[in-house]
Amino acid sequence: MVVMGGLSTAYSPAGSHLVPAPLAARCRSVRLLRPRLATVRCSVDAANKQQVQDGAATVVAAEAPASRKECFGVFCTTYDLKADDETRSWKKLVKIAVSGAAGMISNHLLFKLASGEVFGQDQPIALKLLGSERSLQALEGVAMELEDSLYPLLREVSIGIDPYEVFEDVDWALLIGAKPRGPGMERAALLDINGQIFADQGKALNAVASPNVKVIVVGNPCNTNALICLKNAPKIPAKNFHALTRLDENRAKCQLALKAGVFYDKVSNMTIWGNHSTTQVPDFLNAKIDGRPVKEVIKDTKWLEEEFTITVQKRGGVLIQKWGRSSAASTAVSIVDAIRSLVTPTPEGDWFSSGVYTTGNPYGIAEDIVFSMPCRSKGDGDYELASDVLMDDFLWERIKKSEAELLAEKKCVAHLTGEGNAFCDLPEDTMLPGEM
Amino acid sequence: MVVMGGLSTAYSPAGSHLVPAPLAARCRSVRLLRPRLATVRCSVDAANKQQVQDGAATVVAAEAPASRKECFGVFCTTYDLKADDETRSWKKLVKIAVSGAAGMISNHLLFKLASGEVFGQDQPIALKLLGSERSLQALEGVAMELEDSLYPLLREVSIGIDPYEVFEDVDWALLIGAKPRGPGMERAALLDINGQIFADQGKALNAVASPNVKVIVVGNPCNTNALICLKNAPKIPAKNFHALTRLDENRAKCQLALKAGVFYDKVSNMTIWGNHSTTQVPDFLNAKIDGRPVKEVIKDTKWLEEEFTITVQKRGGVLIQKWGRSSAASTAVSIVDAIRSLVTPTPEGDWFSSGVYTTGNPYGIAEDIVFSMPCRSKGDGDYELASDVLMDDFLWERIKKSEAELLAEKKCVAHLTGEGNAFCDLPEDTMLPGEM
Repeated sequence: MVVMGGLSTAYSPAGSHLVPAPLAARCRSVRLLRPRLATVRCSVDAANKQQVQDGAATVVAAEAPASRKECFGVFCTTYDLKADDETRSWKKLVKIAVSGAAGMISNHLLFKLASGEVFGQDQPIALKLLGSERSLQALEGVAMELEDSLYPLLREVSIGIDPYEVFEDVDWALLIGAKPRGPGMERAALLDINGQIFADQGKALNAVASPNVKVIVVGNPCNTNALICLKNAPKIPAKNFHALTRLDENRAKCQLALKAGVFYDKVSNMTIWGNHSTTQVPDFLNAKIDGRPVKEVIKDTKWLEEEFTITVQKRGGVLIQKWGRSSAASTAVSIVDAIRSLVTPTPEGDWFSSGVYTTGNPYGIAEDIVFSMPCRSKGDGDYELASDVLMDDFLWERIKKSEAELLAEKKCVAHLTGEGNAFCDLPEDTMLPGEM
Repeated sequence: MVVMGGLSTAYSPAGSHLVPAPLAARCRSVRLLRPRLATVRCSVDAANKQQVQDGAATVVAAEAPASRKECFGVFCTTYDLKADDETRSWKKLVKIAVSGAAGMISNHLLFKLASGEVFGQDQPIALKLLGSERSLQALEGVAMELEDSLYPLLREVSIGIDPYEVFEDVDWALLIGAKPRGPGMERAALLDINGQIFADQGKALNAVASPNVKVIVVGNPCNTNALICLKNAPKIPAKNFHALTRLDENRAKCQLALKAGVFYDKVSNMTIWGNHSTTQVPDFLNAKIDGRPVKEVIKDTKWLEEEFTITVQKRGGVLIQKWGRSSAASTAVSIVDAIRSLVTPTPEGDWFSSGVYTTGNPYGIAEDIVFSMPCRSKGDGDYELASDVLMDDFLWERIKKSEAELLAEKKCVAHLTGEGNAFCDLPEDTMLPGEM
């Protein structure tokens, strides 16, 4: 069982789970008559449509049987985008799975995805919410709020507890659900428990997702979780897996802007290197302010070398003190940023950070781990690593420390990546303050 | 003290409040040097700028003294939209005050406002967050997350506890903060307590807001709160005050779509008449599905007359059961919808619902109350009442019942609207399930 934001989420072993009666009943009258379509479950060709007017509801009669996937409420309704002038020119439906869907980060993220601000105003969306038996009622609540929001682009919503069903045909998998670290729990124990979740979700993605699915891992420890996930999904290109370091990047940009007394839109080329942990390296050597190297603008080297990184890392902890909760809204914004960076071309000369697979990297970082590095995209969902990157001893030493940590984490989860017996020796607690 | 979503918010009596030291200290180094500009607090003409490089921060030197308003963090930075190619063509800054800014509805709404999805991608935004002494730390947390979100359009954020400061020059006031009804509290007691808040906020708006400020009241009982607010703001056109019934409208559209087996984008002309309470009237006589009268599409008259309204009203209560919290996300979406309906032209033939001032209405509803009615806008922030509206006995009788309730509520708050002594006789509990 996986708990996120006070609500259990995201994981059950492979196999078929029946959804409890109340939910199934909601959909049944329409579901039993739903046409069988392999990929676009709730939409229907105008030619196949046969309107039935029974005084209670207009439903679409077509061949049985019901799909085994669960739709929710109004999203069980058939629709035909090609029949309306406003929607005829829309792109093909994009299917997005979100795990930990009943948690607070998802509660912000799902509405952003549905609004069109991520994929654009001509991109219809299917949301597939992954939860647990315990969170299923909460997932229904989330789906109800999505219904009541009347988002025109949001055409399908389904909820489920089996990743083999929820991940079917998905183009994106946003893996937010993870077990939070309990009191006194070692990072090694967390690696093992959450690693198991991501091993199973990797297998499920491998089995049923779109072969080119893009995966963003948010649940911690996200770099090693992403590595486990990709190792369990050999059919999916390893390059497609990301560990979220975008909130770190955003926070680093904001702190540089604050220090320089400029607005944050002036900061570019901000790399977070390494692990999403206290060994992460916010890179002030390559970052620019108004197109100039940071060190030319901020002369306070002591602040850059000693305080900047700590300030970025402490941000989550300070926020919890002030606000009483972890940073759900800004985390969701950073997930949006991470996706948008892959589906829109990177501005000329700039880059963004993402935790990605290191094999083939040009920097000399150890292969076969997931490490945050500077990326550029043509906007096609893919990326290339930036090649015009400066390196100095100060930066490289810190990168090597984060690399060493990730290599040690990898040994802890060897049993989950198919590389033999695990051996776990993690001396320090490197969880970021305020992270779960 | 006003509590919303578990955090205190939104109200302090008129007068000047000092902000505690930690916050003030954050801004001081920049604030003391900030140029004095009457309307655009943190922006500065390029010509006036004098960059000072002190090794610690680049600040803008200009005439003292500090503004008495508080900015937050990176939003204390000066900027010049005219200096950059990307921002030169942007519109003039719009200033938006949000009360109850530390609550959950605001936590969704503020990020939507900042993202540009409400006012458009060329509309820079200033957010002015109103809280209470008790919620001030939480407000700082919200402001920190807004900083970390790096929204290009969000140029100014300030936080405060005095409506006379926070409302200064605002173009929009979104009044979300209100005291929730405690156990055993009568609606009359709630009317009195929250009415006092909205009387004071009305006075503050009258004194310092933009003379054409648009006000949307969300805090309950929102219709009568809006009436109190407008009565205490005689300099602001009464037409500018709205009580939010948009979530009711959205829920009603969704339920009609579900019943008809169509997608919700097919439902139009959905009016909520009356009070945001259980006497509200979701109007199935005028609503249309795919351009046809609802009664032609949904033949189940018993459902329309007996179940439809109850289903819409119960929605919030069902959601709390499922999700464990009240509907913050979809309420925020409905506030966005309400604003967007005023700043974009209403689609031909359609309308939207808003609780507005009745004086001069063409329907025969009692004057001098705030009543939800069908509205159309040219997109200029203003609206006209729809004139092509059908009426039958069934609809009219229910409208009269909601009118009677609002007239009774008005008598309860006569001491707050300058109309003599209050006399309160509210027989029924008409709070909507799941509402605070």
